Amino acid sequence: MNLILTLRILGALLLFLGATLFIPLPFSLYYADGAWASYVYSAFICFAVGWPLFLTCNSKKDLSVREGFAVVTFGWVVFAVFGALPYLLSGAILSPLDAIFETMSGFTTTGSTILPEIESMPQSLLFWRSLTHWLGGMGIIVLSLAILPMLGVGGMQLFKAEVPGPTADRLKPRIQDTAKMLWGVYVLLTAVETLLLMLGGMTFFDALCHSFATLATGGFSTRNASVAAYNSSYIDGVITLFMILAGVNFALHFQVLRGRVADFFRSEELRFYLGIIVVATGIVMFFNWSGSIYQGIGENLRYSVFQVASIITTTGFGTADFELWPVVTQYVLVLLMFVGGCAGSTGGGIKVARILLLFKHAHVQVFRLIHPRAIRLVKLGNRPVDKEVLQAILGFFALFIGVFVIGSLLVAASGMDLVSASASVIACLANIGPGLGSVGPVDNFAHVPAFGKWVLILCMLMGRLELFTVLVLFFPSFWRK
Amino acid sequence: MNLILTLRILGALLLFLGATLFIPLPFSLYYADGAWASYVYSAFICFAVGWPLFLTCNSKKDLSVREGFAVVTFGWVVFAVFGALPYLLSGAILSPLDAIFETMSGFTTTGSTILPEIESMPQSLLFWRSLTHWLGGMGIIVLSLAILPMLGVGGMQLFKAEVPGPTADRLKPRIQDTAKMLWGVYVLLTAVETLLLMLGGMTFFDALCHSFATLATGGFSTRNASVAAYNSSYIDGVITLFMILAGVNFALHFQVLRGRVADFFRSEELRFYLGIIVVATGIVMFFNWSGSIYQGIGENLRYSVFQVASIITTTGFGTADFELWPVVTQYVLVLLMFVGGCAGSTGGGIKVARILLLFKHAHVQVFRLIHPRAIRLVKLGNRPVDKEVLQAILGFFALFIGVFVIGSLLVAASGMDLVSASASVIACLANIGPGLGSVGPVDNFAHVPAFGKWVLILCMLMGRLELFTVLVLFFPSFWRK
Repeated sequence: MNLILTLRILGALLLFLGATLFIPLPFSLYYADGAWASYVYSAFICFAVGWPLFLTCNSKKDLSVREGFAVVTFGWVVFAVFGALPYLLSGAILSPLDAIFETMSGFTTTGSTILPEIESMPQSLLFWRSLTHWLGGMGIIVLSLAILPMLGVGGMQLFKAEVPGPTADRLKPRIQDTAKMLWGVYVLLTAVETLLLMLGGMTFFDALCHSFATLATGGFSTRNASVAAYNSSYIDGVITLFMILAGVNFALHFQVLRGRVADFFRSEELRFYLGIIVVATGIVMFFNWSGSIYQGIGENLRYSVFQVASIITTTGFGTADFELWPVVTQYVLVLLMFVGGCAGSTGGGIKVARILLLFKHAHVQVFRLIHPRAIRLVKLGNRPVDKEVLQAILGFFALFIGVFVIGSLLVAASGMDLVSASASVIACLANIGPGLGSVGPVDNFAHVPAFGKWVLILCMLMGRLELFTVLVLFFPSFWRK
Repeated sequence: MNLILTLRILGALLLFLGATLFIPLPFSLYYADGAWASYVYSAFICFAVGWPLFLTCNSKKDLSVREGFAVVTFGWVVFAVFGALPYLLSGAILSPLDAIFETMSGFTTTGSTILPEIESMPQSLLFWRSLTHWLGGMGIIVLSLAILPMLGVGGMQLFKAEVPGPTADRLKPRIQDTAKMLWGVYVLLTAVETLLLMLGGMTFFDALCHSFATLATGGFSTRNASVAAYNSSYIDGVITLFMILAGVNFALHFQVLRGRVADFFRSEELRFYLGIIVVATGIVMFFNWSGSIYQGIGENLRYSVFQVASIITTTGFGTADFELWPVVTQYVLVLLMFVGGCAGSTGGGIKVARILLLFKHAHVQVFRLIHPRAIRLVKLGNRPVDKEVLQAILGFFALFIGVFVIGSLLVAASGMDLVSASASVIACLANIGPGLGSVGPVDNFAHVPAFGKWVLILCMLMGRLELFTVLVLFFPSFWRK
């Protein structure tokens, strides 16, 4: 471990964070919400810590794999801690733990909130809250399509196939190129959604904040009732569409922009993802229909597909209290929580491609029992999947279930009921936002005991960074030379 | 598929079942419970179907792997259907579905019951109920230590290491030898437990029935209140000990009887299994203590270790209503439901060895991220685990979770609440018995909707036969020449 280099990069990240803290300033001044000083002070603190780190920690060595893990994990931690400053300095959130929870939820694009009352917050802080989503989403796209594949985390090597990414052992070269291309797509989609939402009657402020939260599959809203507050089928439709787009591998979006539209639907993961959405929406609609929840098929479709898209993409926006839906529809939504978005998207969860490969692996296992001498490989998009990659994916799945289980146990130990404990852990681990029980779609996380909140913060971080990136840091051998 | 040979063996199994149906007769006559005729009729039906099958379906070919799957799966189905006859013919259970549920629960050593009132049943039927456990347990020991390893199911090859089992591609040779040795251990342990329970004041009848249910890790009791009815710390202790023994690989017991005691504790799976029991009991005791559930450490230990042993071994006996315990203890118990007993025991669930190897695999995956060039294999008991076997185990785990999830979805669709639906599926899939919610330790399965009961029956069967054995039959290519 080259600690000096790691600290230098963390210093640079703090300088970057400090710069972004000026972005909410115009909103604060425009709305005269009185929070402007908190951004200036927060930025000052970021610079005061980041500048000396960046300057004094001089290392001429290039970044290698180990520092990659440390920079990614500590980078997110640093953002969650220093990004919490505006909440604290403005007095909008009094408890440091709650402020860190909210910020980690933002940067990991989770969307779980400890705020019981959102609309009374200073407008500029709501903007900062949505901006943490958007910046986090930027980080995740590059992370999942460029950095994690290089680090060899959880089989992510497999999913970068479609983007002309870097292949070297070193981290720096070509990441910048990849990042620029992908961020271009991200900014473009955000701009288009903002425009479309404004056409539906949203203010620029609300449209921008909701577009930030959609593209990042975050879920923070500027309204207490989330998207339901607008009560517009047009707005529901636009957000549904962009949530689904945000759950797609951004490398595919990039290909489409380059005119290679055919590549889009040739992706097996994408087709499986769309298939799940169609089937899940069908099941939810059927039971909502048989339970007479909605009047007419149009209304049923509008609310069902929104919720399915919101959960599978791990966004977490709400237009309906699905805890009032038939039990089986809730079960479908819980399943979708585990599935998550496509690899290379801003969505969390296990990822569609991994689920697809798990199915294929199980299928091959059964096939081999019937035909012990036949050779059949697990394939993705006609290409055989490397055994090492498959093992990494199977390991990821086992680990995900393991972390979910241990996390739920710890949160239950902090004093929550069984359903709420498990639901809060999957909601945070898969970076969704709302869960079930006392952390359901119309509730919040304020009442979770302090110990439980720390566990959930760790879950958000681990889920976001594909588990392994965080877990390696707990190995003593990681820190040895 | 050699269908003729399969039918011949199923005929032979029916003849065997017919013979066992005479065993409850003496009890029926002794207690004059009026059920005697139902056994005679049931046996007659078994013979009437089995005899022609056995005689007419003549095949000179030897059993091969494919018929192995068919015989095992359909054998259990045939037992569940024909074994249900005494319940129906005596009028003790009126619904054929309920009778099949109870019998499948018996032969798979699950222990879930649809009987709201047990003590009013004819005594001999309670004996038959316990006997189905014991016979099922006999089947499972041979299945898991001799047949499944040969069929290559779910990595079971790995766990037969300690028993001098057969290795040929054909099924017949040496299975008989292995079976005889293991059944000797099984009968011996049953006899010892029966004696010890009688010394504690149980009647011979109750002692025998409870020993049947213990050694088979079944869980059917002859009393409404299960083992709590005896209110004896001695009886609780004896049953706790024998449940733990029944959860151990029977090949290890056999080694001990041959004087190789050292081999017993050299088994890594066994040490992990005992370790889990100790740790889980410790956690449960701690929270029961902090929740002031029991008076004094002795009482706390008695009830806590009983419940931990009952759940991890998938027996399902009860001495306490753990739904009144602190939530976190229930969570620990739910986890243990998934773990299950050791491979080669009568316990169900995922199996301790598979869980152990999953941990090791995940550990190796993390290790390899830090040391990309290092070679580290997953080992069990100092021997490296074959990659194919590891893949089979990983596939089994994914499949187990998948079946649990789909089963829960289907049961929820039949109209049960979220917790009860999931709990009933894991209780049946892991062959435990009681679950949580409306199928908790003081409830029963009578109220489960008919569709849900069919799903649970299939879960019991799949769980018992290590999933793959049943699933291969759903593949069209299985039935082709």
